[in-house]
Amino acid sequence: MAHTPTSHSPSGLTRPPWRASVLTLFPEAFPGPLGVSLAGQALDAGLWSLKLLQIRDFGIGRHRAVDDTPAGGGAGMVMRADVLASAIDAARQDDADLPLLYMSPRGNPLTQERARSLSAGPGVMVLAGRFEGIDERLIAGRGLTEVSIGDYVLSGGEIAAMVLLDACVRLIPGVLGASASLVHESFEDGLLEYPQYTKPRDWEGRPTPEVLLSGDHAKIAAWRRSEAVRITRERRPDLISSKENG
Amino acid sequence: MAHTPTSHSPSGLTRPPWRASVLTLFPEAFPGPLGVSLAGQALDAGLWSLKLLQIRDFGIGRHRAVDDTPAGGGAGMVMRADVLASAIDAARQDDADLPLLYMSPRGNPLTQERARSLSAGPGVMVLAGRFEGIDERLIAGRGLTEVSIGDYVLSGGEIAAMVLLDACVRLIPGVLGASASLVHESFEDGLLEYPQYTKPRDWEGRPTPEVLLSGDHAKIAAWRRSEAVRITRERRPDLISSKENG
Repeated sequence: MAHTPTSHSPSGLTRPPWRASVLTLFPEAFPGPLGVSLAGQALDAGLWSLKLLQIRDFGIGRHRAVDDTPAGGGAGMVMRADVLASAIDAARQDDADLPLLYMSPRGNPLTQERARSLSAGPGVMVLAGRFEGIDERLIAGRGLTEVSIGDYVLSGGEIAAMVLLDACVRLIPGVLGASASLVHESFEDGLLEYPQYTKPRDWEGRPTPEVLLSGDHAKIAAWRRSEAVRITRERRPDLISSKENG
Repeated sequence: MAHTPTSHSPSGLTRPPWRASVLTLFPEAFPGPLGVSLAGQALDAGLWSLKLLQIRDFGIGRHRAVDDTPAGGGAGMVMRADVLASAIDAARQDDADLPLLYMSPRGNPLTQERARSLSAGPGVMVLAGRFEGIDERLIAGRGLTEVSIGDYVLSGGEIAAMVLLDACVRLIPGVLGASASLVHESFEDGLLEYPQYTKPRDWEGRPTPEVLLSGDHAKIAAWRRSEAVRITRERRPDLISSKENG
């Protein structure tokens, strides 16, 4: 894919695009859903760039083997450290400055704070695994940071990488039209978002809360805040207690 | 997309495919990454089916509007309850038996247990939102269950829906070759997975742990269990304490 090397921020200053480099056995799955809507428009506009590296190109022998049976036995196949290290070393020749992440349910859970911090940097290099996982030695051998998008198992790291990239890309300056829409969303203030309403005023006998139609901005802000606190307490008390403890 | 209406399980009995129905403004993003590898092969084999409904077809007026400004003010746009209800009502004509899920950071966090339970049912109907969210009244008005894939914000529900579908599809009987490979993976026993190793035996001065080369299956199983416990305690003590409390 060819993208412009620089982009123009709303301030008129030129900044280099945020760079994503993905190592995968399925480069054809990208950009996939990242090619539509907000992330897709930002990709086309050169606000971020996407580079794909086919791990199989670094496979061993005539069949370009990338995996082998687990030491000690067991089902499935494990991706080889030597093959993945070759792929990473090649990818790093151009992008040595990018943090190297490995999508894995054993990793540190992705948070909005983490996404914000990554989006403020130069970009990310992401290894998307398949099969039963990767040889453990690669993690220390190449300094991979394991990142989990949640407490469930996927068939591979590709969709997890897309989650990470989408969460970061939308935070790049200039990607969202009105930056104000970032202020009140879930997790930005440690709370889930307050409920939203729009037209029609009455729908199937369900009215829009009166306060939202009052025009009283202070009252509206107070109501939204108290709704956000109520919903967070009801649904995710862990978010509130972790904030009080942190 | 045309898929065979039934598929053959390994036991030789015919079972209907697991059905996914997705309501989205970006049907072109599907199957996307779900079209490759394991999920893609299972889709081609008729083990699951994927139906897409374009929400905009139910939009209002000449411009097929699906959203409007938030009641009470604020940035962004909110998806209208009436438009989404029309889309849902149309989708339910064929698939009234499917649980209706809405991907939202305000939802109940997706877990492996939840994915397993959904994969054992007839399928899922998933609403993928965009903009600032959806009109709150739709949630009660149509009985939506809000599901979150993690504590971060995405630009829309499409990639979140793909996460949910991939987590479920790989658990459908017949999708994974050896069902044994499900037993020891992360979360199935409340623990993160033990580390994996494969050839070569020594890589860059890093040896494979001796016990895995011993051929002593009981010793290997004990080591793997103790590594899983150690890694879970180090990285995710919350998983162990929630298990002890539950």
